Amino acid sequence: MAGGGGTRLWPLSRQSRPKHMLSLFHEQTLFQMAAHRLDGMFPPERIFVVTIETQVGELQAQCPEIPLENYLIEPMPRGTAAVIGLASVALQHKDPQAIMVVLTADHFIDDEDRFRQLLSAAQDVARDRYLVTLGIQPTFPATGYGYIQRGAQLASYQGLAVYQVLRFKEKPDEATAQQLLASGDHAWNSGMFVWQVDQIMAEFNRQMPGLAGSLAEIGHAWDTPEKNTTLQRVWSQLKAETIDYGIMEGARRVAVIPAAGLGWSDVGSWDTLFDVLDHDQDGNIIIGKNFMGMDTHNSLVYADSINRLIVTIGVDDLVVVDTGDALLICRKEQAQKVRLLVGQLKANGSKYL
Amino acid sequence: MAGGGGTRLWPLSRQSRPKHMLSLFHEQTLFQMAAHRLDGMFPPERIFVVTIETQVGELQAQCPEIPLENYLIEPMPRGTAAVIGLASVALQHKDPQAIMVVLTADHFIDDEDRFRQLLSAAQDVARDRYLVTLGIQPTFPATGYGYIQRGAQLASYQGLAVYQVLRFKEKPDEATAQQLLASGDHAWNSGMFVWQVDQIMAEFNRQMPGLAGSLAEIGHAWDTPEKNTTLQRVWSQLKAETIDYGIMEGARRVAVIPAAGLGWSDVGSWDTLFDVLDHDQDGNIIIGKNFMGMDTHNSLVYADSINRLIVTIGVDDLVVVDTGDALLICRKEQAQKVRLLVGQLKANGSKYL
Repeated sequence: MAGGGGTRLWPLSRQSRPKHMLSLFHEQTLFQMAAHRLDGMFPPERIFVVTIETQVGELQAQCPEIPLENYLIEPMPRGTAAVIGLASVALQHKDPQAIMVVLTADHFIDDEDRFRQLLSAAQDVARDRYLVTLGIQPTFPATGYGYIQRGAQLASYQGLAVYQVLRFKEKPDEATAQQLLASGDHAWNSGMFVWQVDQIMAEFNRQMPGLAGSLAEIGHAWDTPEKNTTLQRVWSQLKAETIDYGIMEGARRVAVIPAAGLGWSDVGSWDTLFDVLDHDQDGNIIIGKNFMGMDTHNSLVYADSINRLIVTIGVDDLVVVDTGDALLICRKEQAQKVRLLVGQLKANGSKYL
Repeated sequence: MAGGGGTRLWPLSRQSRPKHMLSLFHEQTLFQMAAHRLDGMFPPERIFVVTIETQVGELQAQCPEIPLENYLIEPMPRGTAAVIGLASVALQHKDPQAIMVVLTADHFIDDEDRFRQLLSAAQDVARDRYLVTLGIQPTFPATGYGYIQRGAQLASYQGLAVYQVLRFKEKPDEATAQQLLASGDHAWNSGMFVWQVDQIMAEFNRQMPGLAGSLAEIGHAWDTPEKNTTLQRVWSQLKAETIDYGIMEGARRVAVIPAAGLGWSDVGSWDTLFDVLDHDQDGNIIIGKNFMGMDTHNSLVYADSINRLIVTIGVDDLVVVDTGDALLICRKEQAQKVRLLVGQLKANGSKYL
């Protein structure tokens, strides 16, 4: 899944430069890292990318090894249920028995070996006809993620404990998040799933018959000249829904693999970068060279331009992001508000989106 | 006096754009405000500007009413004693009985009527052969100014109490500044002086005979073709000295007029602007239009460009100055450190000076 905008890393992420196209880590973009993370596990011709029309060119340039025909175009945003449904249709046409791994292109994962180990085990679990989720070990009472409550242990797969899922819980309030963290049996919902494609199709049929009918209509036209016009027409009439709410909360046979030690981050806001990026002895993360800090601590400075000097004096816990046409200065613990800001910019018809 | 650089308002003030050329208040530059503040008191042909060669063109453009021959060029920095000496030579050639008013071009004065009233009274005091200083009423234990201790009251001039000066004190440390503030008989040395030109010349002869000899040499060449070469040659051999240390501390017959209620600021660093610029209901001073603040308080934002959006979120007591090629983000109470920063830039041969 490589669509969407990325309002929470503004001004670096933009409508025309969503989060997964950013190079925040090393040289690669998050999209490139997500694709290369599968090296040795999935050949490029088995990687499908769901995105929007305007991003295909750039993504192809970033990962030329993924064939152009593997790009699935979402005509307009209709939520993750529809996106996963579209990918399911595409996979079913390749192989009705396929195991499908649903990943996001804009997350960071530090330990890639561990990640591939988890995916390998998850495929074994999926072959036992489970919908498998990767549950991230919570490290703080996050209110920005959904939670997965685990029940009885199912078995060991490749040496990893796998559990039945008792319940999915939507993003909690602060007090509830504290309880979920303390409970010890809740994990964050990472949005990464592994299942047999016929299994998820069965769930679409059972729980979202409207969407399932639409997907069938798209599937019928798949190998015909009407594929694109059908997709456009059917898609525009879909109701937007998430896979969590539409399918996972009511699904049968759901399993979770606790994914501790992944070094996972959804890179969901500027403050999350402090968990995954290297900092210097003052706790600062400096991206870009034209910077001077005096008495500056625990701050992140993204200095885009080599022709522009950024100086901070007496600054702590601050995020400074300079992209030439826009500058954000944000207290670290208020980084979530960037989303509100982008909402205001949208409401004002701002050119800085 | 309109020379010098202005390292403490970096990055707005630069080597090529010193503080007195900045338009921080209304439309006018500090230099224009300093000149126009004398309207109705001194006709433009009686205003002399001491500056450096490279600034003459710009200053002339800003105040075309001041005749070009009234610009006195300081060949290289040699301190305020030499600057005032040079102006004294020029005035003596116009009128040996002249009263000389020494003002700075880069200070802010809110109440201009009050200022003219003080200058008018000061000229009467100067006619009684005093060297007159304007003493600013201290509002906090400043360590950045020299102090003037007043003694016995001399008389009333135009209804204003005028005092003998007991002592000049150089910039104090924090503890001493506290004492001086508490004493009630100390004022800040504003660097504004009024005296008869023959009186200050007599003090140069008595206290700085070396400088006095050099000034006499310049004076002899004043109306000759050798004026400029003499000035260059003599000036380069001068020892740099301030008028405070060189003359005022040891001068006879020094008077001080307490200048309360002037609304004076030396605009010496970014934090001083909070005392003199209007702020909005959140305590913010916003200069420039392309700015959005969320949860932003008691901060100063200077946004130079209309093509660049600046956003602050969750920010208090911060100074943000964007000049396109450079950006300063500084905690208000550390604004004094900008000077250190500029020192570092100089040491590094930076292009951002």
